[in-house]
Amino acid sequence: MRQTNLSESHLSEFESAIAVERQSESTFTAELDGDWSVAGAVNGGYLLSVIAQTLRGNSSNAPDPMVLSTYYLGPSQGGRADITTRTIREGRSSATFAVDLTQDEEPKITALATMGNLAALPDDVATTATPPELPEPDQCINVAEGPGDFLKSAPLVKRYDMRLDPETAGFAAGRPSGRGLLQGWIRLADGTEPDALSLLAFLDAFPPVMFDLGRFNWAPTMELTAHLRAVPAPGWIRAKLSTRNIAGGMFEEDCELWDSAGRLVAQSRQLARQPRG
Amino acid sequence: MRQTNLSESHLSEFESAIAVERQSESTFTAELDGDWSVAGAVNGGYLLSVIAQTLRGNSSNAPDPMVLSTYYLGPSQGGRADITTRTIREGRSSATFAVDLTQDEEPKITALATMGNLAALPDDVATTATPPELPEPDQCINVAEGPGDFLKSAPLVKRYDMRLDPETAGFAAGRPSGRGLLQGWIRLADGTEPDALSLLAFLDAFPPVMFDLGRFNWAPTMELTAHLRAVPAPGWIRAKLSTRNIAGGMFEEDCELWDSAGRLVAQSRQLARQPRG
Repeated sequence: MRQTNLSESHLSEFESAIAVERQSESTFTAELDGDWSVAGAVNGGYLLSVIAQTLRGNSSNAPDPMVLSTYYLGPSQGGRADITTRTIREGRSSATFAVDLTQDEEPKITALATMGNLAALPDDVATTATPPELPEPDQCINVAEGPGDFLKSAPLVKRYDMRLDPETAGFAAGRPSGRGLLQGWIRLADGTEPDALSLLAFLDAFPPVMFDLGRFNWAPTMELTAHLRAVPAPGWIRAKLSTRNIAGGMFEEDCELWDSAGRLVAQSRQLARQPRG
Repeated sequence: MRQTNLSESHLSEFESAIAVERQSESTFTAELDGDWSVAGAVNGGYLLSVIAQTLRGNSSNAPDPMVLSTYYLGPSQGGRADITTRTIREGRSSATFAVDLTQDEEPKITALATMGNLAALPDDVATTATPPELPEPDQCINVAEGPGDFLKSAPLVKRYDMRLDPETAGFAAGRPSGRGLLQGWIRLADGTEPDALSLLAFLDAFPPVMFDLGRFNWAPTMELTAHLRAVPAPGWIRAKLSTRNIAGGMFEEDCELWDSAGRLVAQSRQLARQPRG
């Protein structure tokens, strides 16, 4: 049984790509979509959305991930994935779940999430962070217009409309700034407005922040924890990616997402292995 | 069977407090120590150390948590805790585990961790972050000399030697800065040098950063993810706590720990509920 009442033809590209089918109380299958891949592996942000979509089926009064911690155990490929969920605690307005995703019985992802209802949160805001200052999207660098071999290795890029702030895109011209900072705009290429599930995908959609340090290989994520903090307003999402601690063969990457109303709607931190070479 | 060859009398206060006993391949018990409590609940940082100590018993060639994500499901109390571990993936030099901790069959903590060997990491460092500038510890404010009712509600404070930078301790004199920043020094009160397990405890030992925003209640943590990045050098640890996104009844708290050799040895981010009143 599909988890939506819409027929497949009414689903957006993104909704179709992250669809899951319930097989029993706690087991699901998904058909991972290889078009959301980079360097031969399905993208980690896309997989966050698949995990959250699965948990929506378990948690009707708590449809949104408030916090989701995902451990990547090996690269996932396009094709069938088996997903098992375990309810750890169900409260009145939130619930915590464990999730395991395997392909061909190989563990690919293990995750924990607390689901809640973003729309029901109090509307207090005392945030001291300020949104990144960016030129308008049409003054930024369209990632989908990058070099052909880059695009060929990263079909994921075409699933989004991603625009990089020229100030932080020096790497594209061979002049990385060395600051460990990337900023830009993002929205889904299929034109649908952002929601909780696409925010998760956006958190790991941009080129790795290590590009700004002149390290150009893709960097495998070990762990990523996302906090969703508000329902995003329609329109472009601003993203800021940064890293400060590169050591011991690993680095952290922080991502902030701001909506068109100027709210900090999502934050993530990941621990990734340093690209070699 | 104790997980150490030392008799109990050779254990430091901290080692005794976080000791676990193995009951079977995947089950353990701990006697949580109420002296590590704040506001009637066992401290979340102390619990991180108990979780990591448990996993050491499962993972001899990977003794250190590289990354540990902990979801707090309800307040823990001094007394017996039952801990169950599940091996998710064992690699050559790292292993990923799930952990559940219950008291009286009530779930208190669920966690994921990837264990490795910090001492075996490559020694490259390209970190752009800089350590917090602090006055010497004897020029800072000793948290253990705070008001009597504060200390009575927080026996945890006496387990550490914690010194707050006067620049960020205005809250203690009723003048919080509003920046959302606390900085200071920390070491174990029992005099033992820092290691991977005490770093975990330090990450959640300081007063909540919300104190610097004039919100003085203790704030329950929903989730905390810690990255350990190097074995700490002996001596004082510098800590920097900050928050930037206070909204929707929640806030994030970031903690950085720097060792005496100037290395960023641990980073954490937690999502916590805002104190009321």
